[in-house]
Amino acid sequence: MQQAIFKKMTKKELIHQIKAKKSFLCIGLDVDLEKIPAHLLQTEDPIFEFNKAIIDATHDLTVAYKPNTAFYEAYGLKGWKSLSKTIAYLNENYPSIFTIADAKRGDIGNTSTRYAKAFFEDMNFDSVTVAPYMGSDSVEPFLAFKDKFTIMLALTSNKGGLDFQVLKDEAGTTLYEKVLETSTGWQNSEQLMYVVGATRPEYFQKIRKIVPDHFLLVPGVGAQGGDLQGVCQYGLNSDIGLLVNSSRGIIYASSNEDFAAKARESALVLQQEMQLIFNKKSL
Amino acid sequence: MQQAIFKKMTKKELIHQIKAKKSFLCIGLDVDLEKIPAHLLQTEDPIFEFNKAIIDATHDLTVAYKPNTAFYEAYGLKGWKSLSKTIAYLNENYPSIFTIADAKRGDIGNTSTRYAKAFFEDMNFDSVTVAPYMGSDSVEPFLAFKDKFTIMLALTSNKGGLDFQVLKDEAGTTLYEKVLETSTGWQNSEQLMYVVGATRPEYFQKIRKIVPDHFLLVPGVGAQGGDLQGVCQYGLNSDIGLLVNSSRGIIYASSNEDFAAKARESALVLQQEMQLIFNKKSL
Repeated sequence: MQQAIFKKMTKKELIHQIKAKKSFLCIGLDVDLEKIPAHLLQTEDPIFEFNKAIIDATHDLTVAYKPNTAFYEAYGLKGWKSLSKTIAYLNENYPSIFTIADAKRGDIGNTSTRYAKAFFEDMNFDSVTVAPYMGSDSVEPFLAFKDKFTIMLALTSNKGGLDFQVLKDEAGTTLYEKVLETSTGWQNSEQLMYVVGATRPEYFQKIRKIVPDHFLLVPGVGAQGGDLQGVCQYGLNSDIGLLVNSSRGIIYASSNEDFAAKARESALVLQQEMQLIFNKKSL
Repeated sequence: MQQAIFKKMTKKELIHQIKAKKSFLCIGLDVDLEKIPAHLLQTEDPIFEFNKAIIDATHDLTVAYKPNTAFYEAYGLKGWKSLSKTIAYLNENYPSIFTIADAKRGDIGNTSTRYAKAFFEDMNFDSVTVAPYMGSDSVEPFLAFKDKFTIMLALTSNKGGLDFQVLKDEAGTTLYEKVLETSTGWQNSEQLMYVVGATRPEYFQKIRKIVPDHFLLVPGVGAQGGDLQGVCQYGLNSDIGLLVNSSRGIIYASSNEDFAAKARESALVLQQEMQLIFNKKSL
C-alpha cells in the first residue's frame, strides 16, 4: 500500500512540534482485540477503528504515535492491513505527527534494506526501531534513508535488559554504553535515536554524556512504572531530546464506549506534567 | 490464515529426517522480484509461484526451508500473503520438512508472545529466529510454545557482527559466549537453537564446548563465502546438530525458465558434499 504523499519529517520539525504542543508524549498503539471495547468488534476492521478513535481524540496532546508491529502481526494478514490503514490515516490527516514503527528489526545489509523499504517506503513511517546485536552493517541500511530516523535499542526497561546490556568489558564500559559510543561513528548517525527505558532514570546521566544531542525514546512511563520527573531531570537536553511513550495507560484507560474520551484524559495528565516541565525550564 | 492442521516437529523427527536424506541442508527462500525469471511476473503471485517451483524441485535434498521475512514485508500486504501461502504449501505438502521464519524478532515479554503467535500459531512455522539483546524475558515467551523451536542469534557472519558480539568482559568471555551460556539456563532452553555464521569456522570449537547438544543454524555457506568442511570439522555433533543454509546460491542458480532445475542441481552439489561427510563419519 504505497502512500500517495511521500512524507518527510526533519528533526527541526519534530522539535518545533514539541515546543508548539508543549508535549513530548508518544502514544503506543499496541492494540489487543481482547482489550478493546466490545462494540468495535462488530466493525469491519476493529483495530483500525480503535486506532482512529484514539488518534482523533489525542492528536493535539501528543507528538508521536508508535504502533508495535507484534500486535498487528499476531493477527496475520488482517493485522498487517490494520497497520497499513493506521499509518495511512495518520499520514493523511496528521502529517505533522512523528510516526514510529516499533519493529525492533535488524539483519545483514541487503536484508535490512528490505525492512527499511517496508517501513519507510511501503508504509511511509518516519522511523523504525532496530536491534543493535548485528552491528554497523545491520543498522546503516536504515540510516541510508534520507529524512527517516532509526531508533536503536540501547538500554531497555525489562528484566532481561540486565542479562547482556550492562555487562562490562575489560575497561569497565557496559555493553549499552559501547553500543551508544560505537553507533555515533556510523554513517548518517545524526539520524539515530535511542531506546532508553524509563525504569532506570539514573542511567540517563551517563547516556547524555555519550549522546548529548540525540533524541531518546523512553518507554516504561506508566504501566512499566517509570517516573517522568526522574527521566526529565537527567534526560532532557536543550532541544528537549525526549519522546516519552505511554501505551496501555492511555489507550486502555476505559474499555467502554467512552474509551477515546478517557484516553484523552489520560494523555492530558501526562501532557500537563510535561507542560509544567516546559514552564519550569522556560523552554 | 490459520492452518488447518497443527503441525508438530520434534528434535527426534528432525534428526530422523537428516539421517534419512543424508542432508542437513536448509534452503533460504529470500525472494527478490528483480531476480526471479521474467515469465513468473505475469502470474497472480510471482513470489509464491517461484517458491512453489523451488520447493517442488528440491524437497528431497533439503531438510529445512527458511524464508527471511524482510523479503516479504518489503512488498507490503502482497508479500505477507505470499509468505502465508508459502508456509501453508509447505505444511500441507511436505509436513516432514522443518520450517524457519527468519524474522530476528525480540521484544518485552507480552509483545514477544505476540510475535510467537504470529509465526507459531497464525502461520504454523516450526521455528523462528530471535535476537538476544533484550535478554531472558524477550526470548522465553517464544520458548513457551511446545514443539516449536527458537533460534537465537549468537555469532553472525556479517562485518558488523564483530562490533559487539566479540567484545570481552572482565573475565575474558566474549558477548556471544555469554549469550550462549546465559541462555542455557532459560526456561525450556532445550528448544533453543543458535545462529552461528559459517565465515568463522574456528569459533565452532568454542561454541560446541558451551552448547554441545543444540542445533546450530549456519548461514553463510555459498554466497557469503563460508566453508562447509570447516564448519563440519568443528560443528558436527553425534546428532549432526547443524542446519547449513544456502539461499542465493541455490534459488538464483538460473534466472531463466530452467531456474527450478538449476536450483536442484545446486542443492544437489551441497547435499552430495554432505553425504560424503555422512559416509566418512559412518553416521
